[in-house]
Amino acid sequence: MSNTFCIYSEDQPGVLSRVAALIYRRGYNIISIAAGPTEIKGVSRYTLVFDGEESTYDQVQKQLQKLAEVISVRNLTREGNTVERYLKLIKVKAPVSKRPSIFQTAEVFRCRVVDIGADTISFEVTGSESKVEACLAALEPYGIVETAGSGQVSLARSGLKSNKDK
Amino acid sequence: MSNTFCIYSEDQPGVLSRVAALIYRRGYNIISIAAGPTEIKGVSRYTLVFDGEESTYDQVQKQLQKLAEVISVRNLTREGNTVERYLKLIKVKAPVSKRPSIFQTAEVFRCRVVDIGADTISFEVTGSESKVEACLAALEPYGIVETAGSGQVSLARSGLKSNKDK
Repeated sequence: MSNTFCIYSEDQPGVLSRVAALIYRRGYNIISIAAGPTEIKGVSRYTLVFDGEESTYDQVQKQLQKLAEVISVRNLTREGNTVERYLKLIKVKAPVSKRPSIFQTAEVFRCRVVDIGADTISFEVTGSESKVEACLAALEPYGIVETAGSGQVSLARSGLKSNKDK
Repeated sequence: MSNTFCIYSEDQPGVLSRVAALIYRRGYNIISIAAGPTEIKGVSRYTLVFDGEESTYDQVQKQLQKLAEVISVRNLTREGNTVERYLKLIKVKAPVSKRPSIFQTAEVFRCRVVDIGADTISFEVTGSESKVEACLAALEPYGIVETAGSGQVSLARSGLKSNKDK
């Protein structure tokens, strides 16, 4: 089963290299990564999805936490209850005759058009992994030229109980 | 100036580690990365944004291409004319009294609600970097609890000239 870590780190050169090397040395395979700056200056956030031997996740978490630049590591899978979203850009072959039916299909998945060329249309779709995959499958018959994806972006859900009640 | 590479590679353990190490050794700083599986089984795609000495970008591109698992590397910045999109999940403090104005603000940026808790609301926003930043700035006064971002996801634009004309 795949596992999701959320890592906050200082925005220093080499952090990604060290994080990836550590996970690789444990024999884990990184399935997806989404990383970028946060609202706090000098701090980056990684959403990292990987699979491997489940019994050593805690060890890896501790080892990651020991890296000098790493501020915090959370095991979102363990915590449960996360919001998971994906962004995918999909470029589809689009001869003029087929455009109406392509737009109709895209509409179903609330895709947004991000580019139109002479032969292709590019859409942006966001949602759960299954929604994005269903969208890809629906557009596949028209001919997918290229896709670019974000990897999983995850946030812990907030409880329905107010903090004041705790 | 930052630079964007699009890398296709075999989905093998250790690829991210090797790619990140190579870029780090050149003294480049990785600003954002978005990576995940593609529509082709066993193939991953990376959108990598980094900055550093511009004169050696070509060298880095060649070195990356030499990695056994790497299938292709494109310098999207050099090619110009790309579609760039970001996904951001934003969790905002949301006492009931402030919700109407929070929803109004979110509406302006076409945010989608992904989670509502007792004290917070989480939105999904997609678009250009400047749009996502403007959205964050607009929600900031309410109190940002946490954000999670995708890094840049890029696709080459298609030309307006039909391939048949070429």
